[in-house]
Amino acid sequence: MARIVVLGAGVMGSAFCLAPVDTGQEVRLVGTHLDRGIIDSIASGRRHHRLGIALPAPIRPYHHDRLAEALADGADLIVLGVNSAGVGWAVEQLAEVLTAPLPILMLTKGLAAEGGTLRILPEVVGDGLAARGLGEVPVAAVGGPCIAGELAVRRESGVVLAHPDPALLDRLLAWVAAPYYHARPSTDLVGVETCAAFKNLYALVIGAAAGLLDRAGPAENAAQMHNPAASLFAQAIVEMRLLNAWMGGLDESVFGMPGTGDLYVTCQGGRNSRVGRLLGAGRRYREAKAEHMPDDTIEGAELALAIGPAVEGLIADSALDGDALPLLRAVIAAICHDAPLALPWPAFHRPGG
Amino acid sequence: MARIVVLGAGVMGSAFCLAPVDTGQEVRLVGTHLDRGIIDSIASGRRHHRLGIALPAPIRPYHHDRLAEALADGADLIVLGVNSAGVGWAVEQLAEVLTAPLPILMLTKGLAAEGGTLRILPEVVGDGLAARGLGEVPVAAVGGPCIAGELAVRRESGVVLAHPDPALLDRLLAWVAAPYYHARPSTDLVGVETCAAFKNLYALVIGAAAGLLDRAGPAENAAQMHNPAASLFAQAIVEMRLLNAWMGGLDESVFGMPGTGDLYVTCQGGRNSRVGRLLGAGRRYREAKAEHMPDDTIEGAELALAIGPAVEGLIADSALDGDALPLLRAVIAAICHDAPLALPWPAFHRPGG
Repeated sequence: MARIVVLGAGVMGSAFCLAPVDTGQEVRLVGTHLDRGIIDSIASGRRHHRLGIALPAPIRPYHHDRLAEALADGADLIVLGVNSAGVGWAVEQLAEVLTAPLPILMLTKGLAAEGGTLRILPEVVGDGLAARGLGEVPVAAVGGPCIAGELAVRRESGVVLAHPDPALLDRLLAWVAAPYYHARPSTDLVGVETCAAFKNLYALVIGAAAGLLDRAGPAENAAQMHNPAASLFAQAIVEMRLLNAWMGGLDESVFGMPGTGDLYVTCQGGRNSRVGRLLGAGRRYREAKAEHMPDDTIEGAELALAIGPAVEGLIADSALDGDALPLLRAVIAAICHDAPLALPWPAFHRPGG
Repeated sequence: MARIVVLGAGVMGSAFCLAPVDTGQEVRLVGTHLDRGIIDSIASGRRHHRLGIALPAPIRPYHHDRLAEALADGADLIVLGVNSAGVGWAVEQLAEVLTAPLPILMLTKGLAAEGGTLRILPEVVGDGLAARGLGEVPVAAVGGPCIAGELAVRRESGVVLAHPDPALLDRLLAWVAAPYYHARPSTDLVGVETCAAFKNLYALVIGAAAGLLDRAGPAENAAQMHNPAASLFAQAIVEMRLLNAWMGGLDESVFGMPGTGDLYVTCQGGRNSRVGRLLGAGRRYREAKAEHMPDDTIEGAELALAIGPAVEGLIADSALDGDALPLLRAVIAAICHDAPLALPWPAFHRPGG
């Protein structure tokens, strides 16, 4: 039996706990300072209000000020389930209490811009802990299509556990591969993380199709806006392939669950789609965010804000081919510069053209 | 101005007419023997009952026994809009009335099994007309995500016109590239047609996720079955990539609108999805078809029936890698052998594994 400490009791951190619990591991769920109410609910056997279920009893809840205690008696793995804005905080917390390197598995998705280029978060976390004297911490990541609310009721979910070290992957798989949690190993950490980050940004802009419908009003034959959404989806995959290759990831990660699968599921709703819909209906980002979702973290928008200036610099320097990334540029313009969202149909990809 | 004759007044044949009409071409829409009611409606300015709109007045309707008349005075292009079961009939009809080769643009999607292997329909049509003395007829095809009902109300739609001859593509683009019909050229006819055919089959099995939900009943947190659907979607793309490469198509067609885009839009509903949902809920194909959709053509099931035996032979001969095509084999078993649909989760693709 392994002892697994999950940091972050939002929907994904909390739902993830089921998989290792169901394979017989001991799981401790540590909330962030924003998760006090959730941790109290779990402690008293009540529902996780955002997941809509009560977590299984073996999951042991901890408030964030008890992180050291949760880690004290021989943890085997830390699972990072904070949102992308919380990564720096999480590194600080862990560096304070860890005394030796411990493998980390990241649920958090995003990219960081550093020194004019882009980095995956496992590298950022590993470097952050190393800089604080923890030596080389192996940081793996989960990718693939998995909505937390569905995992929470044990839906069949296909995911990928990614790290360059196959021996670590074997251990992780043994701990989390519950019968409904179809986890597979991948050594393409860069590809899995690149797809996982960009899918939020592209799901946001695919959501704009619903906004086009809001703006057009109902059609006499009740036609929806699936054609525009599908064109945006395909363009997103084409651009993700290019970005992923540029980052050093494998094409097959884009074709498979980390890319097409995760983008598909992320388009089925959620905050990214809601923001995209508002933009598609003609709203500007800042105003729409302030009016409709002032307190929410929009992962796709967070990514645009985090990497937009660096991407624009890379395009200006011809390190990235801007002509092949019209949708990315449109999202960055809308989120970083508060421009109206302009969907560049004629610039979209021409396969075999 | 070109004169364009569209054969087949179903939803796609009829909706397609808008694009060339809106670029100023003359368009004649010839119904099949099944389209009498639709042609009568169009002739009297009433709605196309399946599209839910009245077609623009310049589209001139013809019953099928007036095909020769529609083609008599210098047509520039024939557009084939029959369903896959009607291709043989269409070739016979055209061979009877054509006196010289005329370019054909196919909306019809499917593959044929001939001599133990698979062929794209433009080749089948070209050969059929050549065998009837018409010489070399250039046969192009349309791919990409385009639901007819949305095209009918001029939604932004991204499509690909495919043929090896760029000069023919230039002419076709000039005739059909209306402002909302974002048509792009592709010389990858094999890839575009392979994707267009298989997307129906895979959309069918992705529809099974909704059937899993029917079977499971509502979750306490209202969770849907998007995770399973997304895994099926990704596996479908991975298998389409393999099949497409085997057929001789380009990867970029699978990544782009013909592959990921068209599969995405086809999963948004329609007959393939309805059949898949019934299978996912535990029904057998023959009974479900007879009970719920006895008179409908299910393109995904038609493809399985058309190529299933050939695919099984190719796998038995190791010409195709059956281990890499678990979803295709599951669909063929369910449609061709009336087996229960078994979703082979553990056999799904492991990117970078």
